[in-house]
Amino acid sequence: MDSHPVIVLVRPQLGENIGKAARAMLNFGLAEMRLVAPRDGWPNPSAGPAAAGADEVLEKAQVFDTLTEAVADCAHVYATTVRKRGMTKPVLTPEQAARDIRTSPGRSALVFGPERSGLDTGDVALARAIVTVPVNPHFGSLNLAQAVVLCAYEWSKAAGLALPDSEDHLPPAPQDELEGLIGHFEALLEPKNYFWPEIRAEVNRRTLRNVLTRPGWNHLEIRTLRGVLSFLEKEPRKRN
Amino acid sequence: MDSHPVIVLVRPQLGENIGKAARAMLNFGLAEMRLVAPRDGWPNPSAGPAAAGADEVLEKAQVFDTLTEAVADCAHVYATTVRKRGMTKPVLTPEQAARDIRTSPGRSALVFGPERSGLDTGDVALARAIVTVPVNPHFGSLNLAQAVVLCAYEWSKAAGLALPDSEDHLPPAPQDELEGLIGHFEALLEPKNYFWPEIRAEVNRRTLRNVLTRPGWNHLEIRTLRGVLSFLEKEPRKRN
Repeated sequence: MDSHPVIVLVRPQLGENIGKAARAMLNFGLAEMRLVAPRDGWPNPSAGPAAAGADEVLEKAQVFDTLTEAVADCAHVYATTVRKRGMTKPVLTPEQAARDIRTSPGRSALVFGPERSGLDTGDVALARAIVTVPVNPHFGSLNLAQAVVLCAYEWSKAAGLALPDSEDHLPPAPQDELEGLIGHFEALLEPKNYFWPEIRAEVNRRTLRNVLTRPGWNHLEIRTLRGVLSFLEKEPRKRN
Repeated sequence: MDSHPVIVLVRPQLGENIGKAARAMLNFGLAEMRLVAPRDGWPNPSAGPAAAGADEVLEKAQVFDTLTEAVADCAHVYATTVRKRGMTKPVLTPEQAARDIRTSPGRSALVFGPERSGLDTGDVALARAIVTVPVNPHFGSLNLAQAVVLCAYEWSKAAGLALPDSEDHLPPAPQDELEGLIGHFEALLEPKNYFWPEIRAEVNRRTLRNVLTRPGWNHLEIRTLRGVLSFLEKEPRKRN
């Protein structure tokens, strides 16, 4: 099974940094890059020279409008952040994440934010877990390519870890199935004014998303919950 | 005992890379940099901007004419190389070197070569051991700052300071809160005939229970879901 994670750069600003990230990836055997709304469009002429030969990564890079689309086929989404967030998601080191990625069935994505600001709260909310590089508390200033190189390096180090025998442990459903579940919840809650008043709406949405994202439900579990929601919205079934 | 290694850059070419190396070091708590015959002299005006705030490392950097002088006070000298050398010295990974540095009495130096060529044979001959980052055999192209960041990161990890603080990751809620949630779901689903016909009831209950049990939701998450269910069973909230 392919344990190579996808590297997703969200709204990267400089082509040079995209190139450096590609170089960092390929050093450790990662070749699949996805770009979400790169600031200066794509392709970017500054990326190639900075990739120092990792052109195959740039040539195959796929571009998406949103992070949701970029990780739609991924069963495990890891959001990298430099600082702690007040979020109820597991916080992993790059080493722990690498071990997870190596040993979990299903595609994984490691998501990195823009150079200046990092991932915003909405991006992080999409992820199952947060990956934080433990840096000097008095000087935390990793650049994008360095964050990528550390995560890729740890993934490479974790090579050789055996996949557990998991025939009855299904992988988490792809992200688009999870989005379907979240959308279903929201569609039911909207007419009940759960997202009202307006000032509470965004926080409520994000909280609900986080609660539904963390379990990592598989395809069958999501199907069960979709069934539950369908019953909740229906009139009582006729007993004939 | 001070286990902080000295970082020695031998004949670095670009000031920018010296700055980036300083930034990489300070992220992981290393502040002592030594420069051997930097190509463009020292100080170098390009170093400061690239250091992104790690100025204290640059300000304290010491300059030497030769590597021999730069490591004169060091008990353990590690030469970093990207490729294997045909030399009869132990070859360590950054992780093994970090462990050695942490546990060996006496000062250690991690020595990095010029950007383009790496350390020459004479430099490597001064070292007790070689440190090689295991890179993709088909694409080994780590830049100087990335090699420094990986070694500094491993040193930091070996300190055991490497655990991210996850104090805001709450434990799963007590079982009675989970039972309350499951009961709430069942109470809503019962009148909708979710558990009907009778022959399906037990399996459906067990499936739902399994799906809701596996996440290990904490107190706050369960409270959120109880709120969601309360909204689903209510008439739309009055907007007053």
